[in-house]
Amino acid sequence: MAEPIEFYFDFSSPYGYLAAQEIDRIGEARGRAVSWKPILLGAIFPTTGSQPLLNIPLKGDYARIDLPRVARRVGVPFAMPTPFPFMSVAAARAFYWLADQDAAKAKGLAKAVFHGSFGEGRDMSGAGAVVEVAGGLGIDPAVLGAALQEQKVKDRLRAEVDGAIGKGVFGSPFFLVDGEPFWGNDRLQDVDGWLETGGW
Amino acid sequence: MAEPIEFYFDFSSPYGYLAAQEIDRIGEARGRAVSWKPILLGAIFPTTGSQPLLNIPLKGDYARIDLPRVARRVGVPFAMPTPFPFMSVAAARAFYWLADQDAAKAKGLAKAVFHGSFGEGRDMSGAGAVVEVAGGLGIDPAVLGAALQEQKVKDRLRAEVDGAIGKGVFGSPFFLVDGEPFWGNDRLQDVDGWLETGGW
Repeated sequence: MAEPIEFYFDFSSPYGYLAAQEIDRIGEARGRAVSWKPILLGAIFPTTGSQPLLNIPLKGDYARIDLPRVARRVGVPFAMPTPFPFMSVAAARAFYWLADQDAAKAKGLAKAVFHGSFGEGRDMSGAGAVVEVAGGLGIDPAVLGAALQEQKVKDRLRAEVDGAIGKGVFGSPFFLVDGEPFWGNDRLQDVDGWLETGGW
Repeated sequence: MAEPIEFYFDFSSPYGYLAAQEIDRIGEARGRAVSWKPILLGAIFPTTGSQPLLNIPLKGDYARIDLPRVARRVGVPFAMPTPFPFMSVAAARAFYWLADQDAAKAKGLAKAVFHGSFGEGRDMSGAGAVVEVAGGLGIDPAVLGAALQEQKVKDRLRAEVDGAIGKGVFGSPFFLVDGEPFWGNDRLQDVDGWLETGGW
């Protein structure tokens, strides 16, 4: 069995949300599983000297045009949440805690969190919002709420972020296909082409 | 006649070079002229807090993989020039000086400069290199060499850069299609789609 596509994203990344709407379909069409891997761009930006896209003069204005335009092109709902940018650490910790028990359910949680943020424009930054969404997927709110306070759950996310940086991941979305890196929602077609042809 | 596509680029931008290989073909297929407009990213980066892509940790390493990969996909030669990044002010001044006399010849100069830099990896930063390439296109080296020292030629480029910033241009390549902004070589397909459909 071929290695899964690694799909890195930050829950607070609107382009990550857009990629999340398409990457599983690409994997399915090419016979590859997709391993979703939330990261924290805030932990990586000091290395690259970046800052949240929407805060950058000129670039931010452009992104506010480009994001809904991409969403219209691919036919998915899009809304900017308030506040933005927001902390995505609770969602990311919840994801890995759940993934260690049930990978499919963790992906379901990720999709639900993304849909809340960028599909409906809701505030998904707090642990409370994440726990509530998880509850809708049959996850015990009290158990998840307690887990989010555990040091080993915090360490799990930190190790994932460090591991991503170690692989050269610096943005969201970011894909690794058999080690080949692709950055940006606008590389989805290249990811698909690479899987189809084996590279060029 | 519909307005031309505005194609903004920096002569020192490798993604600008890649876009330059494709944008005229897209314009031709959609019945639009393409107005080439060199700018200086160095004059814009203070506004956006950016720096030359290849100098950025992690991002630079990625670009060194992605650039030749895009070039292979579209089948154009690609080489990183030395030194890099480099000053592109001489090429940009020469372009507008020539464009005011003969727009087609200016585009020919732009293509030749880009080919020298990123097709062959040559150092095109100095006035001497630009004048030499221009000479190959039948432009009198002495006349161009003198023009590059004129204040009005310098002011012409400065006005173009200021005008571009005023329109929200912050990167290379950057396209305006009837006022709609598209940033990045990976938006070429969107530019084409926008021209075909009138937008979405």
